[in-house]
Amino acid sequence: MSNSVGIAQINSTAGNLSENTKKIAKYIKLAEKKGLDLVIFPNNSLIGYSLENTLERFPFLHKENLKWLNGLAKLTSKTTVIIGEIDNTGQNSIAILKDGKIDKFIKNNEIYSLNGIKYAISVFNPLENDFINNFKNKVADVIIICHSTASKAGKEEKLQNAIASIAKTVKLPIIYVNSAGATDNLSFDGASRSVGADGKVFARAKSFEEDFIILNPLTNEGQIASLPKGSDNVLRDSFSLDYENDLERTYKTIIQGIKDYFKKCGLKRAVLGLSGGLDSTVCAVLLTDALGKENVYGISMPSKLTSSESKSDAKELADNLGINFEEIPIKTVFETTTDCLNPLFERIETNWNDRYKKSFTPDNIQARARATYLWCISNEFPSCIPISTSDKSEAYMGYATINGDMSGGFAPIADVTKTKLFALARWLNKNRTEKNAIPESVILKKPGAELAIDPRTLKTLNAEDALMPYEFLDEIIWRIENKNEEYNDLIQAEFIYEKEHKISKEQKIEWIEKFFSRMSKAHYKWSILPPSVIVDSHSINSAVYKQPVTSGKINYKGSSEKEIAIALNEV
Amino acid sequence: MSNSVGIAQINSTAGNLSENTKKIAKYIKLAEKKGLDLVIFPNNSLIGYSLENTLERFPFLHKENLKWLNGLAKLTSKTTVIIGEIDNTGQNSIAILKDGKIDKFIKNNEIYSLNGIKYAISVFNPLENDFINNFKNKVADVIIICHSTASKAGKEEKLQNAIASIAKTVKLPIIYVNSAGATDNLSFDGASRSVGADGKVFARAKSFEEDFIILNPLTNEGQIASLPKGSDNVLRDSFSLDYENDLERTYKTIIQGIKDYFKKCGLKRAVLGLSGGLDSTVCAVLLTDALGKENVYGISMPSKLTSSESKSDAKELADNLGINFEEIPIKTVFETTTDCLNPLFERIETNWNDRYKKSFTPDNIQARARATYLWCISNEFPSCIPISTSDKSEAYMGYATINGDMSGGFAPIADVTKTKLFALARWLNKNRTEKNAIPESVILKKPGAELAIDPRTLKTLNAEDALMPYEFLDEIIWRIENKNEEYNDLIQAEFIYEKEHKISKEQKIEWIEKFFSRMSKAHYKWSILPPSVIVDSHSINSAVYKQPVTSGKINYKGSSEKEIAIALNEV
Repeated sequence: MSNSVGIAQINSTAGNLSENTKKIAKYIKLAEKKGLDLVIFPNNSLIGYSLENTLERFPFLHKENLKWLNGLAKLTSKTTVIIGEIDNTGQNSIAILKDGKIDKFIKNNEIYSLNGIKYAISVFNPLENDFINNFKNKVADVIIICHSTASKAGKEEKLQNAIASIAKTVKLPIIYVNSAGATDNLSFDGASRSVGADGKVFARAKSFEEDFIILNPLTNEGQIASLPKGSDNVLRDSFSLDYENDLERTYKTIIQGIKDYFKKCGLKRAVLGLSGGLDSTVCAVLLTDALGKENVYGISMPSKLTSSESKSDAKELADNLGINFEEIPIKTVFETTTDCLNPLFERIETNWNDRYKKSFTPDNIQARARATYLWCISNEFPSCIPISTSDKSEAYMGYATINGDMSGGFAPIADVTKTKLFALARWLNKNRTEKNAIPESVILKKPGAELAIDPRTLKTLNAEDALMPYEFLDEIIWRIENKNEEYNDLIQAEFIYEKEHKISKEQKIEWIEKFFSRMSKAHYKWSILPPSVIVDSHSINSAVYKQPVTSGKINYKGSSEKEIAIALNEV
Repeated sequence: MSNSVGIAQINSTAGNLSENTKKIAKYIKLAEKKGLDLVIFPNNSLIGYSLENTLERFPFLHKENLKWLNGLAKLTSKTTVIIGEIDNTGQNSIAILKDGKIDKFIKNNEIYSLNGIKYAISVFNPLENDFINNFKNKVADVIIICHSTASKAGKEEKLQNAIASIAKTVKLPIIYVNSAGATDNLSFDGASRSVGADGKVFARAKSFEEDFIILNPLTNEGQIASLPKGSDNVLRDSFSLDYENDLERTYKTIIQGIKDYFKKCGLKRAVLGLSGGLDSTVCAVLLTDALGKENVYGISMPSKLTSSESKSDAKELADNLGINFEEIPIKTVFETTTDCLNPLFERIETNWNDRYKKSFTPDNIQARARATYLWCISNEFPSCIPISTSDKSEAYMGYATINGDMSGGFAPIADVTKTKLFALARWLNKNRTEKNAIPESVILKKPGAELAIDPRTLKTLNAEDALMPYEFLDEIIWRIENKNEEYNDLIQAEFIYEKEHKISKEQKIEWIEKFFSRMSKAHYKWSILPPSVIVDSHSINSAVYKQPVTSGKINYKGSSEKEIAIALNEV
C-alpha cells in the first residue's frame, strides 16, 4: 500500500487566477512526474487567500475560479490533487481533482478513500476547541487539514500543540497544510507539516517561503525543515524584554510582508525619511533586505532641530546599507508654511477666540513637509511608494503626525513595539551578512522625533519624557493585549520597570492614566494606518482589531457602586 | 388585560456607560410615571452599539455593564424593562429588568409571560431568510424584535416587507425596536414600529432621532410618525438619475452621522477647503446644518489655476451660509515646495533613471499644501477637525490625492456619487430654510479639481475628461454594487447615458476598462479613507466592504478556455 504524499506549500496572490494556476500546475506536473499518490495544496490556493468581500460583490469570480480549476484538473492522471478552494456556492471547501476531472468538493469534514486509504479531510481551524469533534465516530487512516494561518507571536506553539493533541487523541497521523506568502497585513508562515499518531512531527516544509515536500503518513517518512529560531517556544506567561526567541520570526514575517505587498501591488521601490532615529533606521534595513538596496531611497530631511549626530547617523546607515541617499533640508518649506499660516491663524482667532496658547502646529508642519516630499518622490518615479515608519508603541499613544510620519504606502513596523525594535536592531547588526549596519549611536540614543524643544531641558523633546518610559509603556500594551488586563489590574501589577527603577505610586498611576487617555484619542489614527504586517499575538491592525473612534469615552477605571447610584439619581 | 408598551428609541454612545445609563434611566422613570406595563430599548442600549472587538480585549467591560444594568434594574417597579444587552458571557442577548432586579437574559428566542401575555422575544435579524423559523411551534401573543439596523438605501422597504410578512405568516403583532444615532460609519435611522397581525404599521417612532412612543399591540393603538420622504419606496430595479425619493433620507443619514461623530468624539468645529466646486460646497452646507454656522470655517486656498469664478463662488457660498471664511493663496508654499523638490528629483534621477516624463507631482503638491493648512488649523484651535470632501465616484476611481483632498478627520459624502450630489445640491437649495444657499454656477459648472491644465483645451482639466462622464461612471458603480454585474454584463447593458448620447462601442469599452483598471489601483486609498457615513445600499466603506490592496491583478474580464489552456501549457 503505497502512500506518497506531496505538500505544495504555495504563495498565491488574491484574485490572480492565471498566475496562481501556473504555480499550481507546476507542482501538479512535478507530483505526476514523481509518481506521487497525492499532492495537497493550501486553503484557497487558486482564488487566493483571502479576497474578503470581493467574491460577494463579484460572484462571477466563482465561475472563473471553477473554469481554471477544471483546467487544472485536466493535468491529473496518476496523482490525485487535494486543494483548498471555494466551491460554486462560494463556500470554503476542498476540491479533489482526479483522473482529469474535479471529482468532488468537500465542504465540511468527510472521508475520502484513495488507493485503499481513508483520508479524513477538513477545512476547519485546528485551533478551535471543538475541532476534534469533527472526527468522532469516523473511521479513517489519515487526517488532512487545509486551513491557512498567518504568523503571529506564539502561534507556532499553539498550532503544533493543537495538532499533536488531536493526533494523539484520535491516534491518527495528521497532514496540516499552510500557505506561504503575504496578503496585505497577513504574513503566512508556511511550515506545513505531518505528525504521526504519536503527535511527533516527521515532516515539515520551510517557513515563510514556497516549498514542496514529500512524505508518507503511514510510514512516517519525510524530512523536517527547521523553524525560525525560537518560534516553537515563544509563548510567555509574563512580559519580558528578552525578545531574542522571537526575532528571527519577526524578521521573516516582516520581510515576507514587505516583499509580497510590493510584488503583488506591482511595486518595486521604497522611499523613506531617514531621521537617524531607531524607527526609520530599522525600516531602512528591512526594506533593503526585502527589496534590494538599489530599490531603496533614504532621504534625510533635517530641520533646525535636527542634531548633527542625527544627520551623520542617517548618512552612515545609508552608506553601510549601500542604499540611495539624499539630504534635503525642510527649512524653507517650513518657514514659508509658517509665515503663511501665522497671519491666517490670527484672522481665524478673531472668530474662534480660544486658540491654543501652545500648539503642536510647528512640530506637525515639519512632519508634514517631510511626508509631502516623500509622496512627491513617489509621484515622480515609477513603482515607488513612501514608507510609514510608525511603530506600535507610538501608534498606541497616537504619537505620530497625521499626513506626516504616520502616512505612507506601507508600514513595516507598525506592529512592533519600541523595546522590541531596539532588540531587533541589535539582532540585525549580528545576523545580517553585513554586520553592524546600524550605527551604535542610533541604538544608544534616546528616542525622540526632534520636532520640538523641551522647555525643561532646552533640548529636543525626548519621546519618553512626553509619554513614559518605553519599557513601561510596552509592558502595558503587552498586558492589555495578552492578558486582557484592565486599569485596576495594571495598577496592582508589578512591572519589570519597577524592579529596576524606584517609582512612586503616583508616578505609576499617572503613566497608566496617560496610557488610557492617549489611547482613547488614538482610535482615529488607528483607523487610517496604512497596510502593515501583523507580527504580535494581538494587534491594533484593522484586519484583526476594530474599535469605534467614537468609543473614546470608555471609563477604563471602572465605576464604583456610589458613582452608579449618583448617576441614576442625577437624572 | 392591559398592555401598554413604551418604545424608548435611544441614541447610545459606544462604551459610555454612565451617559447611556442616564438616558435609559430617564425613560424607565418616564414609563413608570405613565404606568406602562413594558418599556423596550434597542439592541446594546447600555454598552452601545457596536463596540466591535473592544469587549474581547477589555472583558472587564462585561462586568461593568452588568453593574450599571443592576443599577438600572433597581428603578423598575410597575414597569418591566426589555433591553437589548450583552450578557455576562459577552453574547448579544436581551435583558429583562423587573421588580427591582435583572430577571433574566434571553439569548436566542424565548417566550416571556407578563401579565398573562406571552411575548416571543428575539435578538435575531428579521431580514434573514430563516428568521421565521424561530417562531415555529411557539405559542405567543406578541413578537418583540430588538435588532438595530443602520440606514442605507432601500433598507426601509426591505425591513418593513420582512416584518409585515412575518406578522402575516405567524398571525401575530410585532414590535420592532431600532436605535437612533450614529457610531462612526453607521447611522441608525430609528423608526421603531409595531405592526398588527395584518402586517400594517399602527405605531412608529420618528426617524433619525431619539423618540419615546406608547402603543398597545393587542388593540393596535399607537401613533405613526412619518418617514423621510420616499424612504418607504426607494428600491429600484434599474439605475436612475432621479434621486428625489432618496434625498431626504440621504440628508438625514449624513447630518446625524456628522453630528454624532463630532459629539461622541468631543469635537465641535470643522474646517474645510472651499474650492467653489460641488463636493466642498455640499460638505459646507451639510456641516453648517449639523454643527451650526459658527462652528464651520471655509478656507478658500486658490492657486494660479483657480478661476476667479471658483473664488467668488466659494465666497458667495460662505456668505449665504453665514459660516466663517478666509482666503489664503497657496502660491508661495507651492512654489517653495516645487523649487526645493526639482533639484532633488534631478539628483534622484541619476540613480532611478526612469523618471516620469509627465507626473502628477505639481497637481498633488497643491492638494497637499491645502491639506497641510487645514490640519494645521485643526492643530491650532480646540475641538476642530478638517473635513475630507472626497465623493464616492472619485473614491472608486482613486481620483483624489493622498494627504490631500482625501485626508480629513471625517468624510461626510464619501458614500454619495457625483450625480447624486448634484441632485442633493438642488434639493438643499429647495428644502433648507435659507433657500438657494448654493450658487447656481456651482451646480452648473463641470466638475474638476483645477489642479492641472488639459493640454487639449489649454483650460483646467475637467474631471469627466480625465475619467468618463459621471452619469456613465455612476451607473457602473450602481450596477456593480446592486446587481453584482461583471465586465461582460456591463458591456451588454444599455446605459442611461447611451440613450441620450451616441457613443461608439469602442468608447463604451474604453470607459468600462478604465473603470476596472482605476478601481484595481484604488484599493489602497479605500483602506485609508477617513471615517464616513454609509448611505447607499452597498459601499466601499471599510466597515462593510473589504478587498485586499494586493488583489489589483484580478482579471475582471474573465478568461476564455483558450487563455486557460495557454496558461496551463506555458508552464
